[in-house]
Amino acid sequence: MIKLTPANLEDYARGAALLGAGGGGDPYIGRLLAEQAITQYGLPEIISVDELDDNATVISIAMIGAPTVLVEKACSGDDLDLLIKEMSRQLGKKVDALMPIEIGGVNSCLPIVAAVRTGLPLVNCDGMGRAFPCLEMVTFNVYGESISPVVMTDEHGNAVTINTASAKKAENFARSVLSEMGLSGMISCYPMKGSQLKKWAVKDTMTCALHIGEAIKEGRQQDNAVKTLVNRLNETQYYTNAQILVDGKVIDVFRETRDGFSFGHCVVEPFDGEENVTLTFQNEFIAAEKNGQYIATVPDIIAVIDRENAEPITAETLRFGQRVNVLAMDVPSVMRTEKALGVFGPQCFGLGCDYKRLTKVDQ
Amino acid sequence: MIKLTPANLEDYARGAALLGAGGGGDPYIGRLLAEQAITQYGLPEIISVDELDDNATVISIAMIGAPTVLVEKACSGDDLDLLIKEMSRQLGKKVDALMPIEIGGVNSCLPIVAAVRTGLPLVNCDGMGRAFPCLEMVTFNVYGESISPVVMTDEHGNAVTINTASAKKAENFARSVLSEMGLSGMISCYPMKGSQLKKWAVKDTMTCALHIGEAIKEGRQQDNAVKTLVNRLNETQYYTNAQILVDGKVIDVFRETRDGFSFGHCVVEPFDGEENVTLTFQNEFIAAEKNGQYIATVPDIIAVIDRENAEPITAETLRFGQRVNVLAMDVPSVMRTEKALGVFGPQCFGLGCDYKRLTKVDQ
Repeated sequence: MIKLTPANLEDYARGAALLGAGGGGDPYIGRLLAEQAITQYGLPEIISVDELDDNATVISIAMIGAPTVLVEKACSGDDLDLLIKEMSRQLGKKVDALMPIEIGGVNSCLPIVAAVRTGLPLVNCDGMGRAFPCLEMVTFNVYGESISPVVMTDEHGNAVTINTASAKKAENFARSVLSEMGLSGMISCYPMKGSQLKKWAVKDTMTCALHIGEAIKEGRQQDNAVKTLVNRLNETQYYTNAQILVDGKVIDVFRETRDGFSFGHCVVEPFDGEENVTLTFQNEFIAAEKNGQYIATVPDIIAVIDRENAEPITAETLRFGQRVNVLAMDVPSVMRTEKALGVFGPQCFGLGCDYKRLTKVDQ
Repeated sequence: MIKLTPANLEDYARGAALLGAGGGGDPYIGRLLAEQAITQYGLPEIISVDELDDNATVISIAMIGAPTVLVEKACSGDDLDLLIKEMSRQLGKKVDALMPIEIGGVNSCLPIVAAVRTGLPLVNCDGMGRAFPCLEMVTFNVYGESISPVVMTDEHGNAVTINTASAKKAENFARSVLSEMGLSGMISCYPMKGSQLKKWAVKDTMTCALHIGEAIKEGRQQDNAVKTLVNRLNETQYYTNAQILVDGKVIDVFRETRDGFSFGHCVVEPFDGEENVTLTFQNEFIAAEKNGQYIATVPDIIAVIDRENAEPITAETLRFGQRVNVLAMDVPSVMRTEKALGVFGPQCFGLGCDYKRLTKVDQ
């Protein structure tokens, strides 16, 4: 099992930033929070899904909100403690372990903070193998597990609990509650039993994030960060068919915060003189388009990295003139089934196309 | 103790409409709901506050939302059952009795529906002796009792629970949740022990509502409805100093629905040629103004009635040309203390004046 220490947290957070597909909030903030918590409370105990008792109660820990707000309004710690306490009270059971709900961005690090504060073990898995903007976009929902109760807390000690049969409705309630929490709050949803996690969790994604971050570091030492990263992705069990969609310069960025999300697009002009590639995002990148054709869409991961050092660039920090590579890669197969596409396929984001697998990459 | 039957529900609802001070939703809807429930399930058991065991658990039952929406989106019954069940679960205790949180408008009738559906007794009291637009405007909050947990349910089986130390914050959360419930939902807040109710409830207000409605009926039979009503109000323990502020015609109405409330004003031109009187409202009437001076303000009750038959006219149904009397009357003294004025005095509604008692009326 992996160990997360102050020495490798940066790699872990950088890998998670890549899996965040441009969203999930600033991983730098997440790393700082985790680093400080580890220094104060000690290392987190990380366990695998298979080590869980079938009846163990596992709850997810995340921040919810507009990434723009997360940058300035992080968590206080007390809000995380209250989150766990309130979820335990709602379930009428003690909590046995914590987990990330998404492995992207700040939400890959926040469960570490909660774990070391409470001494609860952290399960090496998540609910999507990437980041997604909405609460319903989780394997647990795709395969029929309940999102409820959903607990939200803020730094003022307020706690709101949502019980609903619909994960989409929970998302809507959560966004409206969020407006009263200053557009950023702590959230726990999809409380799971060990047996449910064994069926539907995307396993070992914390390990994936760490290994991806380590690949970037190694690549930098050999001055071929991008190539090392792409090769390493293709060796993982999930993120195969990793490929560079375009190598170019950011020549246009449009971004607006509305309905609790960050929407926008960016245009990358290739250095090889080919057609521009346009990326659209709703917190996360959802599609890459060239010549009026989609060349990659959700649920596959689209990520933007610096072309020199492979540093992941979130949609929030995109700006004119950046020299970038746009990557695309597979998601875990459980995220690509017909049921899954009904929850976070292209049409769920308003794209008028069907999902197509990425072109095959020979290893 | 009073008995509420299909025969006197109309009187009760009419009296409650007057105490609604122009707000509280259409009492006609409330009466229809209560009538149907009584016909189906039998009469409610009504008990006095003093009959309660000190440790009894009493919860309030109300609708929350914009009055304009309540007219078309009433309650399903299931939402009330769920409300009680969920509040019981949140408290970890069985519920012993129900109560109205306000005695105005539809919320005077809705607890009857819940009581007969569940067979729980209904306590003859409320938390203000009138209607008010916001959740914090309740004696229980004024005198330091907690509003939490607040439970909200809708007709789709969704339940949201709010735990917060601040009643004002609960109000804000509730309004934001409401937007996802279609601007109208069921709410229970300020769960009370019998001992707390004995201290802070406004007692016997269901009796007051019934007696006020009966006075209007009797007055109509003698063709002096307004006079009979005013005299009867002056005989009550709470609604003394009842007086006619103006006898005239509605010549202007302005109304807008925003932030989950109905805001507006109306101008009444007196028949005696004196200056016009302007009423402002936020769901309920909050002030009457003449010659640039306030002649009545919250927390006192301002009500508009038909000048012929004393029918209460809500702010929602005001229209040009109505011949009306504008009444003002005292509220229970517990609603007029310095602490109370800090929560629902004139300044809490943005009026730039201090509260002044109504001019004394000799009995």
